[in-house]
Amino acid sequence: MVLPVKRSVRFLPYDIVIEVEEGENLLHAAMEAGVHINASCGGEGVCGKCKIILESGELRSQRGAVQTDEEWQLGFRLACQSQVASDIVVRIPPESLFDRRLLRQKPPAARLRPMPFDAAELREAGKYEPAFQKKYLILPPPTLSDNVCDLRRLREGLKKQYRLDNITMDFFLTRKLAEVMRANNFEVTATLDFAQRRSRKPRLVQVESGNTTGRHYAIAIDIGTTTVWGQLLDLTGGEILGALGEYNAQISYGEDVISRIIYAGKPGGLQRLQGLVVGNINSVVKALLKKNKLKVEDVSHLTLAANTTMTHLFLGIDPKYIRLAPYTPTVCAVPPVRAQDLGLDLGEHVYVYCLSSVSSYVGGDIVSGVLGSGMYQEGKLTLFIDIGTNGEIVVGNRDWMACAACSAGPAFEGGGIRFGMRATQGAIEDVSINPDTGEPMLMTIGMVKPKGICGSGLINILATLMEAGFIEPNGRFREDLPTPRIRSGESGREYVLAYASETQVNQDIVLSEVDIDNLMRAKGAMYAGYITLLESVGLSIHDLEQIILAGAFGSFINIENAITIGLLPDLPLEKFTYVGNGSLLGATCVAFSREMLEEERRVALMMTNFELSETAGFMDRYMAALFLPHTQQEYFPTVMKRLAEAGRR
Amino acid sequence: MVLPVKRSVRFLPYDIVIEVEEGENLLHAAMEAGVHINASCGGEGVCGKCKIILESGELRSQRGAVQTDEEWQLGFRLACQSQVASDIVVRIPPESLFDRRLLRQKPPAARLRPMPFDAAELREAGKYEPAFQKKYLILPPPTLSDNVCDLRRLREGLKKQYRLDNITMDFFLTRKLAEVMRANNFEVTATLDFAQRRSRKPRLVQVESGNTTGRHYAIAIDIGTTTVWGQLLDLTGGEILGALGEYNAQISYGEDVISRIIYAGKPGGLQRLQGLVVGNINSVVKALLKKNKLKVEDVSHLTLAANTTMTHLFLGIDPKYIRLAPYTPTVCAVPPVRAQDLGLDLGEHVYVYCLSSVSSYVGGDIVSGVLGSGMYQEGKLTLFIDIGTNGEIVVGNRDWMACAACSAGPAFEGGGIRFGMRATQGAIEDVSINPDTGEPMLMTIGMVKPKGICGSGLINILATLMEAGFIEPNGRFREDLPTPRIRSGESGREYVLAYASETQVNQDIVLSEVDIDNLMRAKGAMYAGYITLLESVGLSIHDLEQIILAGAFGSFINIENAITIGLLPDLPLEKFTYVGNGSLLGATCVAFSREMLEEERRVALMMTNFELSETAGFMDRYMAALFLPHTQQEYFPTVMKRLAEAGRR
Repeated sequence: MVLPVKRSVRFLPYDIVIEVEEGENLLHAAMEAGVHINASCGGEGVCGKCKIILESGELRSQRGAVQTDEEWQLGFRLACQSQVASDIVVRIPPESLFDRRLLRQKPPAARLRPMPFDAAELREAGKYEPAFQKKYLILPPPTLSDNVCDLRRLREGLKKQYRLDNITMDFFLTRKLAEVMRANNFEVTATLDFAQRRSRKPRLVQVESGNTTGRHYAIAIDIGTTTVWGQLLDLTGGEILGALGEYNAQISYGEDVISRIIYAGKPGGLQRLQGLVVGNINSVVKALLKKNKLKVEDVSHLTLAANTTMTHLFLGIDPKYIRLAPYTPTVCAVPPVRAQDLGLDLGEHVYVYCLSSVSSYVGGDIVSGVLGSGMYQEGKLTLFIDIGTNGEIVVGNRDWMACAACSAGPAFEGGGIRFGMRATQGAIEDVSINPDTGEPMLMTIGMVKPKGICGSGLINILATLMEAGFIEPNGRFREDLPTPRIRSGESGREYVLAYASETQVNQDIVLSEVDIDNLMRAKGAMYAGYITLLESVGLSIHDLEQIILAGAFGSFINIENAITIGLLPDLPLEKFTYVGNGSLLGATCVAFSREMLEEERRVALMMTNFELSETAGFMDRYMAALFLPHTQQEYFPTVMKRLAEAGRR
Repeated sequence: MVLPVKRSVRFLPYDIVIEVEEGENLLHAAMEAGVHINASCGGEGVCGKCKIILESGELRSQRGAVQTDEEWQLGFRLACQSQVASDIVVRIPPESLFDRRLLRQKPPAARLRPMPFDAAELREAGKYEPAFQKKYLILPPPTLSDNVCDLRRLREGLKKQYRLDNITMDFFLTRKLAEVMRANNFEVTATLDFAQRRSRKPRLVQVESGNTTGRHYAIAIDIGTTTVWGQLLDLTGGEILGALGEYNAQISYGEDVISRIIYAGKPGGLQRLQGLVVGNINSVVKALLKKNKLKVEDVSHLTLAANTTMTHLFLGIDPKYIRLAPYTPTVCAVPPVRAQDLGLDLGEHVYVYCLSSVSSYVGGDIVSGVLGSGMYQEGKLTLFIDIGTNGEIVVGNRDWMACAACSAGPAFEGGGIRFGMRATQGAIEDVSINPDTGEPMLMTIGMVKPKGICGSGLINILATLMEAGFIEPNGRFREDLPTPRIRSGESGREYVLAYASETQVNQDIVLSEVDIDNLMRAKGAMYAGYITLLESVGLSIHDLEQIILAGAFGSFINIENAITIGLLPDLPLEKFTYVGNGSLLGATCVAFSREMLEEERRVALMMTNFELSETAGFMDRYMAALFLPHTQQEYFPTVMKRLAEAGRR
């Protein structure tokens, strides 16, 4: 028997060293060492995100199709395609690292929609009513002539003091009941769940000694494919005490839902992904409680919104049929589940209420946004848009709603774009271009040397190039322009935003025609989606009365530029509002409002799902939208006017 | 530091050897070795049941108050009062061992009450309806134009095929839903719980592939203080497939509920007792399933009845306040609890339904008996009696019920009686006495040499001695009798049933005046209880229309003799019936009948509990009953007549 040879791997800039067997995959080694490297495709070698630089030693590496000659010669390797062949030192380049900046960005205050209710106002009007409420009870201590069981004493108190009858309860509460009731001479505080999801009866959730009505908290969670956000809520007054986000730890197993579904199908994969996101939530909850000096026992309630795949993974339900035609999720309206049964570090009385999904690709995050934005209560014909890795759209009002997911691809998150990146430090987020010289002025996040281009940057650059007249409506660079910035590159013609020496990545940062094609496909799918949903009920884009943007992307986008490239409908700017993280907002709303918690399932059922690929006319509309801004110019009257004016200059 | 000295302890007749530290308590050593020794009092040295014989070596033993000189000299020691002082060999005498015979006894067929319903008859009339039912569903497989989630497809099937709506469900079912539905092309069998205890909505309990409606089983469990019984039930047809009993493994920590409550208060005690009885149930269930070639997945439902303390211990709820004035249980109406959460080896979909208790000493076993006997449906004024370690009585009919526990003590189970023992092999169960010579003819269980006297034997012996004219109404032996069988002993005068040489225990087996006093106190408490409950509603013992006896004791008792000693009211024999194990019967009934499952909580609430010690008049009635048969002879007209006749002979 030959003993395996041990090799050391040193990861820079962290200077973390790990011993592995020779032949070990470098991405695995990094995971084991706790070193984060981006890996969008789950290790299939196709995304090219897990680049590392081999500084010394030997790797057996497959060259990825996404790598340029230059990169290869500079020592760039894909970690997922490399095996350790000697003691090595590797460096993780900036673009393969996350920084936490994304999680600290605050959306601008302008055009933000208010929450659909004002807790303070409701409280004053005596109408503030969360589903979970605490009731203080002064019970008569037992005597020999009144020695009913403790539970019955409690029930009778609820009946006498609060006219509450037919209470249901969780078994586990009984184990501590005797001591809790006696600890403060039969003065107790009962927490009740008045949501009607499980039954028409109030459910007894918790019993505490003495009067704890002043301490009553809930947690709202949004599990995004990229980030996990939590908010700590004071249920006594309807106040948000704090918010905190983390990268979704599942990212190491794929940046998009499809890679994670595939990983979940591998042995132990589902359990690992489930454990990772539960770890995220535990860490967010712990930090929120610590910061507010609260104990875990003070939390009564956890509400959670996520897309359908994230919901399945969080619950430990194999999402595999979400990916396979005919794309059926296992469960859209999730029965309440005990937090501890999922591994959450919360009291044994805490149940998780997941917002309902509509379909495999219109999830609880969208239903949550529809709730949180108040769209479901308004009469105006509304278009609700959430653009992230996928784009989801909802059209309708309080009477009807249609929804769909657009396979827009992750172009607006930088996917499929050679220099695309997340909106973190060094990302180009805005540009202006001198139409005469073609020279750009770049604005990066953090005002540092550029590393790449973030989603809102891509839109701004494309719109700017259009307005400068550098791009034809078909997405090709004009050939007659007197600027060296436009040149032929590896992927057709390209515009050089920054030369290698001006960047952090030692390469020219460019936007190529291939990139533009990808952006056109993404925006075209969205636009075709709007039209398809509207026309399915006999309406047109001109009937829209308001547009609500959700998601971090929706918050940072330059709306005018998004209209210019044909991503958003050409409507007056005042009709656009945004809700920020709609998913988190809705989860917060249902924690604060019994009515909204009771409504959410009805809202989800009310949303008619369209599988766009199966909907007659969608493909034609999509093809028609693969143009800047669109083949049908009448959809974009103000853009056409603006471009024409620019052309005249 | 001095190292502890190791000593070996050899247990005969098992020949099990264990090494312990010098000074170790011998009862602990036996527990650790897995050797069973009776220990009624939980190691307090007062019951005298844990006798062992020191065959060699040295024990440091306290002499128990219950031990005779003779026993001490023969090497008898109380295990709980002995510390290991050298390598030793000890023998466990027959009376300190159980045998499994008790568990195999079948009650006689005479006077047995039928179940309150006939499943076969109901089935024919189309009225057989257990709370748990299986529904076979043929669902349309999903397509791109009908790709709702699996759960909704199932819900829609239940609605279309069975008009079932507003289903609730347990979260865990969702995890396997996708595969179960696809395994047989969307043909599935759903198990639903129609009991209204948790909510007005049916609850989805289980989903299986294909048509499994022919396989549908439940388990009914009775946890007695002494034995744990289980029945395997075929829910498809309302049939009992088998029954099996085991000694309650908690016995090693005390034979009565009080000792177990005390033990539960010690560190880890509650968890240990909980684990032991769960182990009992697991072993009974496993054996029942194996014998009937069924899998654990075939079981949908577990119903359970037990006295209040046993119920608390099974659920892991500290029963301490049951023992302390004012005697409040923690919970009488137990919320359904998932079997797996209690450690039961059953499917994750199985919930335990515990029958409701009335008070600390009138438990779910009594409510179960009241249900199973059908008493709660009848118009006749009924007295329901369950005599075991305690005696519980219920008086009433379908319109009202009063109940109480009598601190009768365990006399009828052999407790407090010098030669009292359980109804196992070697127990004297009947006797006839030659009134002239005083010589007895003994009948023992298993027809072997006697070891002691079981409960029914005690009643028969006392009645026989009364009828022979050997005992005065005050419980003293007549002094003028010409038989050496009556003599002065250590505890006053005594009657010798068997001389040492004729026994298995090498001692004279006697019934002493102290024993008779204990029996009088036990029967007096019961009788005073009947009168007190009846008079509380303005009725008298003469108004009783029927008497139902429950419990193993009730099954084996000679009713005439029990009337003679004043334990049972003096009514015509045809008014007496028995139900055997009423607790198990009721648990079975609620598994078979949705209506009875829904009724049981109402029945428990309907039963007014009397704390006899707090009830005016009880003590006077008790004092009046400390006589054979009673000071008020008008209560026992036929007995007085019979005794008078015997006296004349």
